[in-house]
Amino acid sequence: MALFIPRLTIVGVGLIGGSLARALKERNLVGEVVGVNRTRDSLAKALELGVIDHWTTSAAQGVRGADLVLVATPVLTIPRIVEDFAQALGAGCVVTDAGSVKGTVVEPCEALMPKGVHFVGGHPIAGTEHSGVEASFATLYEGSRTILTPTERTDPGALERVRQMWEAVGSSVETMDVVTHDRVLGATSHLPHLIAYNVVNTLSDLEDDIRAEVFRYAAGGFRDFTRIASSDPAMWRDICLSNRDSILDILTRFREALEVLTERVRDGDRDGLYGTFARSKRTRDGIIQAHKQTRKPE
Amino acid sequence: MALFIPRLTIVGVGLIGGSLARALKERNLVGEVVGVNRTRDSLAKALELGVIDHWTTSAAQGVRGADLVLVATPVLTIPRIVEDFAQALGAGCVVTDAGSVKGTVVEPCEALMPKGVHFVGGHPIAGTEHSGVEASFATLYEGSRTILTPTERTDPGALERVRQMWEAVGSSVETMDVVTHDRVLGATSHLPHLIAYNVVNTLSDLEDDIRAEVFRYAAGGFRDFTRIASSDPAMWRDICLSNRDSILDILTRFREALEVLTERVRDGDRDGLYGTFARSKRTRDGIIQAHKQTRKPE
Repeated sequence: MALFIPRLTIVGVGLIGGSLARALKERNLVGEVVGVNRTRDSLAKALELGVIDHWTTSAAQGVRGADLVLVATPVLTIPRIVEDFAQALGAGCVVTDAGSVKGTVVEPCEALMPKGVHFVGGHPIAGTEHSGVEASFATLYEGSRTILTPTERTDPGALERVRQMWEAVGSSVETMDVVTHDRVLGATSHLPHLIAYNVVNTLSDLEDDIRAEVFRYAAGGFRDFTRIASSDPAMWRDICLSNRDSILDILTRFREALEVLTERVRDGDRDGLYGTFARSKRTRDGIIQAHKQTRKPE
Repeated sequence: MALFIPRLTIVGVGLIGGSLARALKERNLVGEVVGVNRTRDSLAKALELGVIDHWTTSAAQGVRGADLVLVATPVLTIPRIVEDFAQALGAGCVVTDAGSVKGTVVEPCEALMPKGVHFVGGHPIAGTEHSGVEASFATLYEGSRTILTPTERTDPGALERVRQMWEAVGSSVETMDVVTHDRVLGATSHLPHLIAYNVVNTLSDLEDDIRAEVFRYAAGGFRDFTRIASSDPAMWRDICLSNRDSILDILTRFREALEVLTERVRDGDRDGLYGTFARSKRTRDGIIQAHKQTRKPE
């Protein structure tokens, strides 16, 4: 069955929701798009940009008559927002989300669905260091991955519909259970972000004289390495609160490994240092190679 | 005085030395280039690529009659190599290096110079994750920075000549004392490299089932963040051995900051987490903004 969404409601029209709306519109896969935000300003902007066709600040009003609802708000707010509008959903509607953590989202949202309405947990792995609907663009998802996290309660038809939607905008969709999702993202996304934030703050804390020089020379590799430290602080606070256990687990492993590496530097351990770096290079080169072989060209 | 180097000897013809030779040749700023390596294979390759005009495996023979000598070998080997050829240098020759650490290089090399020969410590901040003369290219230094580390003993004319050479190939040259150089590079380059290596190794150490998933999803931000973890392990071993004190200092600061951040995650400290991330974003955005304003277009 080809995908067409007569009425799509996006709750949280920012980079993620806005880019999805643009991409579906560009492909004529959507009838009308209703935008819901807390503030009028961003909605007026989204309307002006042609990202949405109608708007309201009431989620319950916005989801009325929707065939598909995407909740793309900060991850901690998702269950509360779904609770606000759940009773207004019509039978046959599919609700999905774009939260970066699934453990705090999927079970409560599933429990809130009225009869005949289905929830599918989702996570499009895409974004830039910019946020807001002004930063949205139709090609954001091309070459990206989306993870869906079905459970025993997930309706197969609803899962298929959400999969079709993300695939239609250029994303490769894979499924994973909720716990695995949160561990995998903790390691591949949340850890690097926390580390990049921590590198930048460590440099800020240097004494004035050396800090000025450090900032003047902080370029090249530093720029790539810390790009992710310009991400939205509120989003990352919420990710840390939502995925606490997986993040603590990977942070603990990271700190233990760093202790060993620090010892090797302190001891001037030639072989140990070489081994550490050679192993990392081998692993990283292997990962990148594997991606080249399995991914579509970017 | 316009720059022209009648005879340039490059000891260590790899990415750094090879790219300098290519860039000077392209601009007709060099007469002949003599390459010195330990192994014949890489020299034959460099000759074939047109990077050098003559070669020898004897440094003492290679520097005879040179107007300028660049030592671009792994940083730990520099003083020993300079010792090997110092007595063969002719009066008026200028010797410089490209080592990433200056504390273990500058003083011993200065002490080795015969009468009438001058040493200038240098560090072109450029490179890719590839190494070897095959990876060299003429535009490597365009838009880069080079730090020279003169001391009380540095000859002003020799300093000027080395500055002209790096500027001629497109690098912005600045001077810094040896200790400051090593602290600044420890913070902006050595710390991020060790951290990236450590992130990759932490992921490698995960249990088999989750590691496979982690590696499959390790893309996007991870790719940029860990690009530097594909750098040459021997080079990074030597940097750790040479810049031990500065690296230990910044690693200690990093680990202390990470301990605080870990506590904030553990405690679910909303305000503390937001403050940590917001401060980092502000700092990082400020650094990038300042670079945009002061640097030449890349």
